[in-house]
Amino acid sequence: MVGTARKITPTKPVPSDIEIAQSVSIQPITKVAQAAGILPEELITYGTTKAKVSLKVRDRLKSSPDGHLVIVAGINPTSLGEGKSTTTIGLSQALGAHLDKNVFTCIRQPSQGPTFGIKGGAAGGGWSQVIPMDDFNLHLTGDIHAISAANNLLAAAIDTRVLHERNQTDEALFGRLCPLNPKDGSRRFGRNMFGRLRKLGITTNDPNQLNPEEISKFVRLDINPDTIQWNRVVDVNDRYLRSMTIGKSPTEKGYLRDTSFDITVASEIMAILALATSLKDLRDRLGRIVVAESRSGDLITAEDLGVAGALTVLMKDALMPNLLQSLEGTPTFVHAGPFANLASGNSSVVADQLALKLVGSDGFAVTEAGFGSEIGLEKFVHLKCRLGGVKPSVIVLIATVRALKMHGGGPPVAAGVPLPSVYTEENVELVQKGFANLKRHIEHAKLYGVPVVVCCNRFHSDSERELECIVRLSKEAGAFDAVVSNHWEEGGKGAIDLGNAVINATTAPDKNFQFVYNDNESLRKKIETIATKVYGADGIEISEQAAERLDMYERKGFGQMPVCIAKTQYSLSADASLKGAPQGFVLPVREVRLSAGAGFVLAICGSIQTMPGLPTRPSYYDVDVDTETGRVIGLM
Amino acid sequence: MVGTARKITPTKPVPSDIEIAQSVSIQPITKVAQAAGILPEELITYGTTKAKVSLKVRDRLKSSPDGHLVIVAGINPTSLGEGKSTTTIGLSQALGAHLDKNVFTCIRQPSQGPTFGIKGGAAGGGWSQVIPMDDFNLHLTGDIHAISAANNLLAAAIDTRVLHERNQTDEALFGRLCPLNPKDGSRRFGRNMFGRLRKLGITTNDPNQLNPEEISKFVRLDINPDTIQWNRVVDVNDRYLRSMTIGKSPTEKGYLRDTSFDITVASEIMAILALATSLKDLRDRLGRIVVAESRSGDLITAEDLGVAGALTVLMKDALMPNLLQSLEGTPTFVHAGPFANLASGNSSVVADQLALKLVGSDGFAVTEAGFGSEIGLEKFVHLKCRLGGVKPSVIVLIATVRALKMHGGGPPVAAGVPLPSVYTEENVELVQKGFANLKRHIEHAKLYGVPVVVCCNRFHSDSERELECIVRLSKEAGAFDAVVSNHWEEGGKGAIDLGNAVINATTAPDKNFQFVYNDNESLRKKIETIATKVYGADGIEISEQAAERLDMYERKGFGQMPVCIAKTQYSLSADASLKGAPQGFVLPVREVRLSAGAGFVLAICGSIQTMPGLPTRPSYYDVDVDTETGRVIGLM
Repeated sequence: MVGTARKITPTKPVPSDIEIAQSVSIQPITKVAQAAGILPEELITYGTTKAKVSLKVRDRLKSSPDGHLVIVAGINPTSLGEGKSTTTIGLSQALGAHLDKNVFTCIRQPSQGPTFGIKGGAAGGGWSQVIPMDDFNLHLTGDIHAISAANNLLAAAIDTRVLHERNQTDEALFGRLCPLNPKDGSRRFGRNMFGRLRKLGITTNDPNQLNPEEISKFVRLDINPDTIQWNRVVDVNDRYLRSMTIGKSPTEKGYLRDTSFDITVASEIMAILALATSLKDLRDRLGRIVVAESRSGDLITAEDLGVAGALTVLMKDALMPNLLQSLEGTPTFVHAGPFANLASGNSSVVADQLALKLVGSDGFAVTEAGFGSEIGLEKFVHLKCRLGGVKPSVIVLIATVRALKMHGGGPPVAAGVPLPSVYTEENVELVQKGFANLKRHIEHAKLYGVPVVVCCNRFHSDSERELECIVRLSKEAGAFDAVVSNHWEEGGKGAIDLGNAVINATTAPDKNFQFVYNDNESLRKKIETIATKVYGADGIEISEQAAERLDMYERKGFGQMPVCIAKTQYSLSADASLKGAPQGFVLPVREVRLSAGAGFVLAICGSIQTMPGLPTRPSYYDVDVDTETGRVIGLM
Repeated sequence: MVGTARKITPTKPVPSDIEIAQSVSIQPITKVAQAAGILPEELITYGTTKAKVSLKVRDRLKSSPDGHLVIVAGINPTSLGEGKSTTTIGLSQALGAHLDKNVFTCIRQPSQGPTFGIKGGAAGGGWSQVIPMDDFNLHLTGDIHAISAANNLLAAAIDTRVLHERNQTDEALFGRLCPLNPKDGSRRFGRNMFGRLRKLGITTNDPNQLNPEEISKFVRLDINPDTIQWNRVVDVNDRYLRSMTIGKSPTEKGYLRDTSFDITVASEIMAILALATSLKDLRDRLGRIVVAESRSGDLITAEDLGVAGALTVLMKDALMPNLLQSLEGTPTFVHAGPFANLASGNSSVVADQLALKLVGSDGFAVTEAGFGSEIGLEKFVHLKCRLGGVKPSVIVLIATVRALKMHGGGPPVAAGVPLPSVYTEENVELVQKGFANLKRHIEHAKLYGVPVVVCCNRFHSDSERELECIVRLSKEAGAFDAVVSNHWEEGGKGAIDLGNAVINATTAPDKNFQFVYNDNESLRKKIETIATKVYGADGIEISEQAAERLDMYERKGFGQMPVCIAKTQYSLSADASLKGAPQGFVLPVREVRLSAGAGFVLAICGSIQTMPGLPTRPSYYDVDVDTETGRVIGLM
């Protein structure tokens, strides 16, 4: 066994997740780090079981070869999920504790909203989990809090600037932005004023050199309040904040505005955290965030507001991946958790980069891609791989008998209601019919020129014939291999076949990684390519307003950016009710937005809810602390 | 020298705060902790320069004697502040690095709002600072973020509950709160439902035993939306959130509500953090928070909503004080930062308790009380000492020549405008006139039966005659001692006289610590006692609405609680323009509120702003990161 990998002894029937998580002794995170090749000075511990890892690791190992990058993606899931995180962890445990490979797991940090809402905690499941699960599900090291703080400082800066510009002359604004030193008549620019000055073509460093026209351009962003696209955030399921009118205090002098709060993980700053490649890159991206347009149509950025430096200060520690461990001792990076529709849906570029260096040429970095492969995997490739310069060696596609039955025509599956019997009794025909969905995902994954391994994530009620059917059809559809995996019940031992399939896939001769579209295609063409080649649509239909904005983005020089499509995860199409392998549909692009900081153009297909609500019985009804021991109870 | 105390070599002219903070080598926090008597298993490090300290320290040392508690309070300040934090740190440095005493400093954690707004960073100043100052001013270990998360989860729980009750029958609510297990017909209460059940007098643990009337009482909190007194919070100066209408999304079905966001440090949860004495006490206080009234006038608590356990989970790490160090190596607890008007204005009870145990019988815990002594010191005594069972040995009162001149009739002092010349030129007469304010604070402090040491915090432009005048008059007014201190310029060395005065005061024979009012007086009487004995008012004037509520609180059993008066810090009265020692005024009590979780009745005198705004030129214009080194620049 390598490093801190260790075999555990899973018990049956499988206890609750929190019982399992608290039954296993946790190894000191310093030991996990040391065994993973992280130097003491590269580790910032937060207590004894979690730590941040400096990006200096990457610099130190820059001439070392990368390990194998394994992307774990899935088919279109049911609303209960098909175990992607659990499989990512189970596969890692198989590789590390049973197949003697260096391995790192890379997963996302969950939002606290769902933790106290409908979902409860999530850190894998059964005998494939990341620990400590309470830290994982709660503050961890504060990255999401840092995003809330930065996001909301920027929001306050926008509205307050509008107010101050409304109520002050150019001279008054200038006098306050660059106050006169009464002793010598000098004025001085703030450090973060130079971004806007240079954008305006003003090259002097002395405020007294500005002429009245330059002063006016410098002090007056002239934001059109109707174009403000920056929402405030909280990491709470608070549906009452979906739409509101702010500024109603008399102190705001009648400048009312309608706006919204999103959940924090929907912030563009989360998208940036997931894609930034260095502190410098983070600083630049935060400065490029477009928050609104001026009345004359200029794009107003965080740099124009002079706040990007402060945002970076708030985010600088968050840029370092968080190190935890799995039940079987796999070092695990938990880092970033962007929405898979509004953003990349994957953990961070830097976590993958660090993991690939740390595992070395024969090792494996196993990383999860959110939602179905047509969303998570597509974005992994076109957003993360492109930016981070990393290439996948193997793509794992997760399928379940349950989800395939649903795609084959089974009744709806929903949380909180008993599962219809078709899902618990053998029905090979339904599985076979539903395979059409998995087939499309296999075909999609193969577009990237990387071997595809199908993993049937075994549930208790699955029959051998059902599972065998999926394995056989997957191989016929061109999968490099297809195996059944039982890691929820058995931990890494249950995923040994999957581990071997992944190891074998790295030796496949036909690897020729490629993108599905190129940077220099038009934005419209990029959307169309994803719709037709990845989703299987006949074409796209762009609303007039969206088309205008795409033209505008091209004109303003954003045409080279990749696109990020926001759509439902429950269908290959934008219509959640179209199961299986829908055909003859058109992808409707309702709205497009610019995420200039994250570095993509967002195409919104269908309605996307960016603020969840709490159910009548939220999971917080069961969560408490044992006040004697300090132990968290009822998180799952 | 004791522990990690060390002498430094201050340079003149005094460099900027951040230059000083970054010029001094920082000692590993593990070393600071060890030298302070904290065991490794009691320390939770966050990187190498900050840590949390377990309350187990207190249990381990419970039979050891406490050290001397020194409260540092002040006169009514100018808007520039008179250096209370700086003096607290400077005095500690004198005691530790120059007078060979065991010493601990206890100060508040600042809000990030002012840090990026008008104030810039604050961690003392000059050669009396806490380091690292960027951590101190930013996320630190996430306590304030935890408060935001808990506060806003509770807010979401309130509004969502109102929505669900509006749209569902008793049966539907019951069915969702205690879902039927279709296999055996059983139902189960969630762990956090028992608080409400017991309050209703329902003793069964089986939901199926409830009769329809009990079901209705259990499921229907029947909150009157007009009585909701729980605001949401962000730790940002965001004036547009002072007043708003929420719930405007169609998904909320027309249930609109006007509400406000406060800055996080104004949350009752911050007040609770500062006063909680154990994890159990924290859990109980969070459960007791009153969020609204029912339509029949019952007080609805966080426990009724079933969310108090989750709030405790979010707050459990925040309850442990944060350990940092001063420039001269003093171990420093930075913990809690409640508003001095809405709450106690002091750092936490547990930080003081731990510090007193750790310094031992001959040692000193130096702790700061916010605002003028009539607010910070009064609340320290009646809220903190009463709850925490700690007694002060010495009270230090800070005065400055500048503030006394203002009280003597000098022109207004404001940030961002040059100081009028009367403040920079000798004027003993004005100081003498303004002494009336300090005299009142000395008389107030002496009410508690503890020796009072006056500290003149020396500024560059002060003349010897001005300082001598303050010293002389202070002694005449009954101060145990009065000394001039120069710790801003010289560090601990500059506060040696102050340190000796404090040490001598501990030997004063006449110590007889007492409260100014007793628990069993009526709420109205408590307010009156503070107004007349502490503020020097002729009496109080209570609005009709406030009087009704005081009666109601007495009826509902909250009459034993202490009161917490919210008023301006700039005058002994509730009118900021009344300087010096105002007489013949009446304290107007506009509104009273119940902070049942924090454990006091709030009496609001005058208008209190709970959400600051950003100025035209916020301090974030200068804040950035050096992207090569990761170092924060421009924070001060």
